[in-house]
Amino acid sequence: MKSSNQLKLVLTRRYRFAASHRLHNARFSEEENSRIYGKCSNPYGHGHNYVIEVSLSGPLDHATGMIANLADLDRFVEREVLEDFDHRYLNKELPVFHERVPTSENLCIEIYSRLKSFPSAKLEGIRLEETGLNSVEYSGDKGV
Amino acid sequence: MKSSNQLKLVLTRRYRFAASHRLHNARFSEEENSRIYGKCSNPYGHGHNYVIEVSLSGPLDHATGMIANLADLDRFVEREVLEDFDHRYLNKELPVFHERVPTSENLCIEIYSRLKSFPSAKLEGIRLEETGLNSVEYSGDKGV
Amino acid sequence: MKSSNQLKLVLTRRYRFAASHRLHNARFSEEENSRIYGKCSNPYGHGHNYVIEVSLSGPLDHATGMIANLADLDRFVEREVLEDFDHRYLNKELPVFHERVPTSENLCIEIYSRLKSFPSAKLEGIRLEETGLNSVEYSGDKGV
Amino acid sequence: MKSSNQLKLVLTRRYRFAASHRLHNARFSEEENSRIYGKCSNPYGHGHNYVIEVSLSGPLDHATGMIANLADLDRFVEREVLEDFDHRYLNKELPVFHERVPTSENLCIEIYSRLKSFPSAKLEGIRLEETGLNSVEYSGDKGV
Amino acid sequence: MKSSNQLKLVLTRRYRFAASHRLHNARFSEEENSRIYGKCSNPYGHGHNYVIEVSLSGPLDHATGMIANLADLDRFVEREVLEDFDHRYLNKELPVFHERVPTSENLCIEIYSRLKSFPSAKLEGIRLEETGLNSVEYSGDKGV
Amino acid sequence: MKSSNQLKLVLTRRYRFAASHRLHNARFSEEENSRIYGKCSNPYGHGHNYVIEVSLSGPLDHATGMIANLADLDRFVEREVLEDFDHRYLNKELPVFHERVPTSENLCIEIYSRLKSFPSAKLEGIRLEETGLNSVEYSGDKGV
Repeated sequence: MKSSNQLKLVLTRRYRFAASHRLHNARFSEEENSRIYGKCSNPYGHGHNYVIEVSLSGPLDHATGMIANLADLDRFVEREVLEDFDHRYLNKELPVFHERVPTSENLCIEIYSRLKSFPSAKLEGIRLEETGLNSVEYSGDKGV
Repeated sequence: MKSSNQLKLVLTRRYRFAASHRLHNARFSEEENSRIYGKCSNPYGHGHNYVIEVSLSGPLDHATGMIANLADLDRFVEREVLEDFDHRYLNKELPVFHERVPTSENLCIEIYSRLKSFPSAKLEGIRLEETGLNSVEYSGDKGV
Repeated sequence: MKSSNQLKLVLTRRYRFAASHRLHNARFSEEENSRIYGKCSNPYGHGHNYVIEVSLSGPLDHATGMIANLADLDRFVEREVLEDFDHRYLNKELPVFHERVPTSENLCIEIYSRLKSFPSAKLEGIRLEETGLNSVEYSGDKGV
Repeated sequence: MKSSNQLKLVLTRRYRFAASHRLHNARFSEEENSRIYGKCSNPYGHGHNYVIEVSLSGPLDHATGMIANLADLDRFVEREVLEDFDHRYLNKELPVFHERVPTSENLCIEIYSRLKSFPSAKLEGIRLEETGLNSVEYSGDKGV
Repeated sequence: MKSSNQLKLVLTRRYRFAASHRLHNARFSEEENSRIYGKCSNPYGHGHNYVIEVSLSGPLDHATGMIANLADLDRFVEREVLEDFDHRYLNKELPVFHERVPTSENLCIEIYSRLKSFPSAKLEGIRLEETGLNSVEYSGDKGV
Repeated sequence: MKSSNQLKLVLTRRYRFAASHRLHNARFSEEENSRIYGKCSNPYGHGHNYVIEVSLSGPLDHATGMIANLADLDRFVEREVLEDFDHRYLNKELPVFHERVPTSENLCIEIYSRLKSFPSAKLEGIRLEETGLNSVEYSGDKGV
C-alpha cells in the first residue's frame, strides 16, 4: 500500500543577516594571507548582506497541508542562528570562528550544524549567499 | 557505444499567476486554525503573485538542439494550469481545494499532477514560490 | 550662510504585504467590467504580493547622521497600513474600498494619505508595486 | 532653432562594494546609542553589500550616441570611491567617518562629493542601497 | 474647488525584448571605434535582454480607478515598439539605426518618440535597461 | 575514522556575458525552421544577457576554509569561456556553433566541456540562463 509519506517535498525558507568578517589565518604568513584571500584579508574586516536558505523535507501532514510550520522554523532559526550572527563581527563574536576562517563554506557548515536538530522536519540542506555572485550549499556529511 | 541520450540536461521554465487563497481546515476549531495558520486563516482570504518553475529532462534532440520546445510547454502549462489558477480564488474555484488546504505544498503537488503527462519530455519537478521568501519543490513520488 | 538643512536627501524604505482584491465597479454593467478589467474582475477576486516603497526627505540630523529613524517609520507603517492591508481581502475588509475600486492607483493614494502625517520627516511619495511588471507612484496633490 | 543639447537624458550605472560599519556617536551615552541605532551600534560593527547607482546627465554626443563613456566613468568611480570603500571597515579606515557616523545618508553624501567632479557629464545624483530594503538618494545641495 | 485631476500619479509598466546590436560609427576609424566602444564594436555584434519601463501620468478616472488601461498600453507598445525591436539585429533591421549608433541613449530616444502619441495618458518618460548594470532614462525635450 | 573530506559542499559562482545567436538549422526548410524556432530564427539573429552559474564541489581545505579559490576560478572561466563568448555572435564566431544550433542546451554543454578540467575542484554542473524565464542545467554524462 502506498503511503503519502513517500511524497518527496522540499520546503525552502529564506532569511537574511548583515555581518562582517575577515578572511585570515594566523598560521599563514601575511604574504600567504594576501595571496589566498586578497582584499578579503584586509585587517579591519568588511561585511555582507548574507542570505540563508533553509530547506526541509518530510511527509506531508494531510490535515494541515504542510511539511512544517514556517512560524516554528522562524523561531528556531532566530534563536539558533540569527541572534548570534546578525549585526556581528563573526571572527570576534562567534567562538567557532576564532579557530576557523569564516569563509562562506565554514559559515554554511556552522549554520547547518545549528539547524539540523529542527524537530518538525528533516533538514535537507543550507544554502548561504555571501553576495549575489557567490553561494555555498551544504547538505551534511553523506558518506560515512 | 555511447548515446547522447545519456546526457543529463534539465530545462527550467518560469510562469507566473496571481491568485488568492485562505489557509483554513473546517475540521479544526477556530482556535486551532488561528494557531496553525495565523493571519493566513483570515476569513476573506488574501493573495500572492505565485511563480511556477517547471523542470524537464530528456535526451537532446541533436537536430533541433533542444530537449523540448518551449512553445509546446507554454501551451500545455497555459491549458493545464494557468487557465484554472490565474486570477482565481483557489479555495472556491478549484474543486481540488474544497478538500485540501491550498498551502504551497498542496498547490505544488496539484500542479505537478497536472503537468506530469507533458508528452515531449520528462517532468523532473515543480518549484512553486508563494513569496520571494518561501517556496516548495516537488519531484513526484519516488519511493514505491 | 549655507545651512546643511538644504541638502536634498531622500530615504526610501520597502515594505511588503499580501492581499486579495477584485477590480469591479457595481455601477458598470458586467460587460463593461469585463471589457475594462478583464480577468481582474473575476467574481471571487485574486491576489498579489504587494511592495510599498515609502520615500522621505528632510534635513540631515548631523548628530545621528539620519533623516529619520527607520525603526520609527517601521512602527508607523505597521500601525497605519500593514495591520489593515496585510492578509486582507481589500474590497471587503477596508471600508475605503467599498466605494473605490482597489486598483494600484487607488491603493497608492490611500497609503499615501495614511502616511503623510509621519512626524519625523516629509513624505516625498509612495510607490506601490502590484507585480514585478507594474507599479504606481504618488507624490501628493501638487497643484492647488 | 532647437539644439539637441536640450534632450534630457539620464544615464545610470550600478557599482557594488562590500564594507563594514558601526552606527555609534561617541558624544551620545551608550543608552542613547542603543536607543537610536539598536543592534547597528553593536561594538564590533557589521557589514553590507552596498550598491551605488551613479546618475549622469548631459547633451547627447551625436557622433558617439552617448552622454558619457561608461569606461571612463568606471575608472573614475574605481579610483575615487571603490578603492577606498570596498572591503573596508568604514569607521576606521576612512578619515571622514571618524567624525561622521557612517549612516547611508552620510555615505551617500560622501560618495556624491567624490564623484561630482566627473569631467565628462553632469552628476545628477547618487543612490546608495544598504540592503534590498533601504536606500538613500542624494542629488546635491539645491537650495542656496 | 479642488479637482482630482491635480493628483500627480505615475503608472509604470515593464516590457522586455531580446535584440542584438553593434556599437560602431562608419565615420570613425577602426582605432577610434575600438577606443570608444571597446568590445561593443566587435564586427558581428552581440545582444542583450533589454527592459523597457514606460511611465504614464494623467488624471485619475474615478469611475475605473485608473490613469490608463494597461491592456491598451500593452497593445500600443507591442505594435509601436516590440514588433520591430524584439528578436532583431537593430543596426540592420531598423532603418533609424542605419544612421544612428544603437546605444542605449539612442534606443531610449527612439522608443520615446514611438510612444509619445499614446492617446490615453501622457508619456512621462522611458527607462531602458541594457543590462542589470546600466540604464538610460529619457523624458523628452524639456527646454524649448 | 571520519574524514572531513566527506563533507558535501557545493560552491556556486555566477558570471555574465552578452552575446547574439540565431536558432536555425540549414538542414531544415525555412518552414520547419520557422515552426520550430519561431522568431528566434529571424535571419539576422538577436541577443541575450546570459548568466552562467558554475558549481564546484570538493573536500574543504581546512587551512583556507575553502573548496577552491574563486580568484582561480575567475581566471579559468575568463580564459576558457568569457573571452570567446562575451560580445560575440555565437553562430559565426565560435566554430562549434557552425555545426550545432546555439540553443541554451548546446551552449550549456559546450561551457561544461570547457570548464570540466578546472584543476582545483570537481565541476558539479553548469546552469545557463538565457533570460530570467528560461534556463538549462547540465551536470555531465552520468550514465555510461
